[in-house]
Amino acid sequence: MESAEQKNTQQRLEALTDALHSGAADKVRQLLSVLHPAEIGDLLESLPHGPRELLWELVPSEEQGEVLVEVNDEVRSGLIDEMETHELVQATGGLDTDDLADLLHDLPGAVIHELLLSMDKQNRQRLEAALSYPEDTAGGLMDLDVVTVRANVSLDVVLRYLRLRGEIPELTDSLFVVNRFDHLQGLLPLSTLLTNDPEASVAEVMNRDVEGIPATMKSIDVARLFQDRNLVSAPVIDENNKLLGRITVDDVVDVIRDEAEHNIMSMAGLDEEDDIFAPVVTSARRRAVWLGVNLATAFLASWVIGLFESTLDKVVALAVLMPIVASMGGIAGSQTLTIMIRGLALGQVGSSNARSLMLKEIQVSIMNALIWSLVVAVIAMAWFQNMDLGLIIGAALIINLIFAAVAGFTIPLILKRVGVDPALAGTVLLTTVTDVVGFVAFLGLGTWYLT
Amino acid sequence: MESAEQKNTQQRLEALTDALHSGAADKVRQLLSVLHPAEIGDLLESLPHGPRELLWELVPSEEQGEVLVEVNDEVRSGLIDEMETHELVQATGGLDTDDLADLLHDLPGAVIHELLLSMDKQNRQRLEAALSYPEDTAGGLMDLDVVTVRANVSLDVVLRYLRLRGEIPELTDSLFVVNRFDHLQGLLPLSTLLTNDPEASVAEVMNRDVEGIPATMKSIDVARLFQDRNLVSAPVIDENNKLLGRITVDDVVDVIRDEAEHNIMSMAGLDEEDDIFAPVVTSARRRAVWLGVNLATAFLASWVIGLFESTLDKVVALAVLMPIVASMGGIAGSQTLTIMIRGLALGQVGSSNARSLMLKEIQVSIMNALIWSLVVAVIAMAWFQNMDLGLIIGAALIINLIFAAVAGFTIPLILKRVGVDPALAGTVLLTTVTDVVGFVAFLGLGTWYLT
Repeated sequence: MESAEQKNTQQRLEALTDALHSGAADKVRQLLSVLHPAEIGDLLESLPHGPRELLWELVPSEEQGEVLVEVNDEVRSGLIDEMETHELVQATGGLDTDDLADLLHDLPGAVIHELLLSMDKQNRQRLEAALSYPEDTAGGLMDLDVVTVRANVSLDVVLRYLRLRGEIPELTDSLFVVNRFDHLQGLLPLSTLLTNDPEASVAEVMNRDVEGIPATMKSIDVARLFQDRNLVSAPVIDENNKLLGRITVDDVVDVIRDEAEHNIMSMAGLDEEDDIFAPVVTSARRRAVWLGVNLATAFLASWVIGLFESTLDKVVALAVLMPIVASMGGIAGSQTLTIMIRGLALGQVGSSNARSLMLKEIQVSIMNALIWSLVVAVIAMAWFQNMDLGLIIGAALIINLIFAAVAGFTIPLILKRVGVDPALAGTVLLTTVTDVVGFVAFLGLGTWYLT
Repeated sequence: MESAEQKNTQQRLEALTDALHSGAADKVRQLLSVLHPAEIGDLLESLPHGPRELLWELVPSEEQGEVLVEVNDEVRSGLIDEMETHELVQATGGLDTDDLADLLHDLPGAVIHELLLSMDKQNRQRLEAALSYPEDTAGGLMDLDVVTVRANVSLDVVLRYLRLRGEIPELTDSLFVVNRFDHLQGLLPLSTLLTNDPEASVAEVMNRDVEGIPATMKSIDVARLFQDRNLVSAPVIDENNKLLGRITVDDVVDVIRDEAEHNIMSMAGLDEEDDIFAPVVTSARRRAVWLGVNLATAFLASWVIGLFESTLDKVVALAVLMPIVASMGGIAGSQTLTIMIRGLALGQVGSSNARSLMLKEIQVSIMNALIWSLVVAVIAMAWFQNMDLGLIIGAALIINLIFAAVAGFTIPLILKRVGVDPALAGTVLLTTVTDVVGFVAFLGLGTWYLT
């Protein structure tokens, strides 16, 4: 039998929904007791309103703070709205300053006021430090749970210091070696500490071949660094090499997943921080914006078609076939677009190889244009018993597929240059191009040739 | 000035391309010397053929094996093709068995034969063990670098054992406590080892509240577990609780990123393991399949339009406006589809909440259908000075947006049930539905009302 830890979110959700429905509060508490805050967060996000608030009531108050850190922005502010000031102060009072920094902007003023009053000076300074860096930088990701040692002491002294300390922060794989100005000098991995002669000095065994992560580094570059170098934790420094804090792999994993979700959701004009069970009006309003943008481009395409109204009136077969030209362009272009969006996100595409890649994409599109225009031309000829129609749709398809490759390649580069997220705006712009070019090419050739 | 470690892939790529172009082999070697295998892999993937092979020649042979593990499948087999048997044996001979297992199917038979001959019995058994689990399970992810201790010894004995051992495998945050049958009894985190009295026994301080990961667990569930519980490493067990190996967070990060890339690439019919600089013919052939599938659905839509040829002949305005109905349906449906694909991937959507979510999606779509059909109707009336045309397009849009929500919700559930990847086939099926329903509704109403 699988134990509660080994269940996945879906299985837990079913057990929990059953328990909530039957009003078995003890059963719910028991199910929650084996779960970690992130897992409780997953469940809250997956529950519709009603059951969600019911479950929240049953989350032990000492865990509520950490659960709030884990859920997405919209679910979080919904849960916070449910809570009284004193409950919020109690739930968030025990959080690490970096976690508190993440949810501070969602807390009511009264709660922030009380929290600040209850903090000692050191923690208030830490909170200010955490708030002073943008969320998407190394400084915004870091926590302050660093254990530092000096280079001139012996490993035995370090071992005794750790025993005296009594605990080591989670996800510590290395101690940071600093001088008296707090400048980073090296790392002392726990494994080094454990496998070397206690009489050796830190300076003799430490890893000097280490550079701190600048607090201003983008979190996406931090993620890449952790991934490429298999890091568990890494020191964060300021421009003078002074140790500011550390980044741990758990936060990096969150960055990677958020980034990936952001890309997928953006392509459909959605936000990964939205509540899937947001009120209908809220969801409808959000999606309306995206539909409106797309409607504008659809009308643009219609307007283009309208220019050829008299042609369509004479050759109705053009109306029947025209979606094929537009649709094939959209599909082919989205393949190039996707490769570009991913390549830009990974840093794999840039000025040094852009020309080679563009050349390759255009060659691929020409090859596919030739194959599929032939297929489409033959089918169109057979269907409408009209040789000219086949030639026209074949030619239009070749034109549109080549434009699609160029647009799929160029649009994300331009969007990135002007600071717009290619994943968000890329698809809309691309289909606008492929629709307009497709209709103009096909109906234009048709007008010139058939009427 | 930024140092080489802090450059991102793009900046490194530019420096490297310059050096390769100017033939400065020493400069290239120097740039490579500070990079990790994964970073060299990124660069190889980003280089077109020619420079890529040039760079590969300059990668030190002792690093080539690890770089091969890091690059994607297609780039890997290209690089392997460049190498002689003895070079491959040399490059891969030093790899861990789990890494070797990953690339074994890409190696020529002669190389595998030599590798097996050169292995001792223990390593051959390890390799067999690694090959006996599917790649996408905990067993396929695990490595065998575990450090085990017995519960009845003192921490001091453990500390002396580690010093004697001289090294601890990378990414070890815990020692695994086993009995004499190798059954998992608990974890001894290094932090516990370092902060407790050396006279204490392992049994007194170990973490018993731990379950091993079954070797058959899906890697995507393993990833979720690591993410939710902030793990660095975790023991893998068989059905009898016998310790088989361990999974480390670096491999989990790769699972998360691969999964995310897979979803994005699948949506455009692409494979994340393909080389972006594959030969033009290879790329064209791969993409041709996707274009062909989409062409079939485009012809289906055209055929539907063709059923209304005589109507279009009479009312050409229908031809001008019809792409709007189809396109809006596709956009609205893809929003629901994306939410479902993500929800299914995260385990957030299942039988317990499917009904609530479907109800919500339909309500959202009705609300947007009402808003946008009104807008479209008014514009169509004004444009064509035809009241009926406005009413018809408004009604068709309402019908299509509701169908789009139902299809966006149902298609991924059905695909998952029949074992097809919703990210791959979802969009094609959805647009087929929204195109067909859109054209039938709009042209059908037009035929009935206007002719």
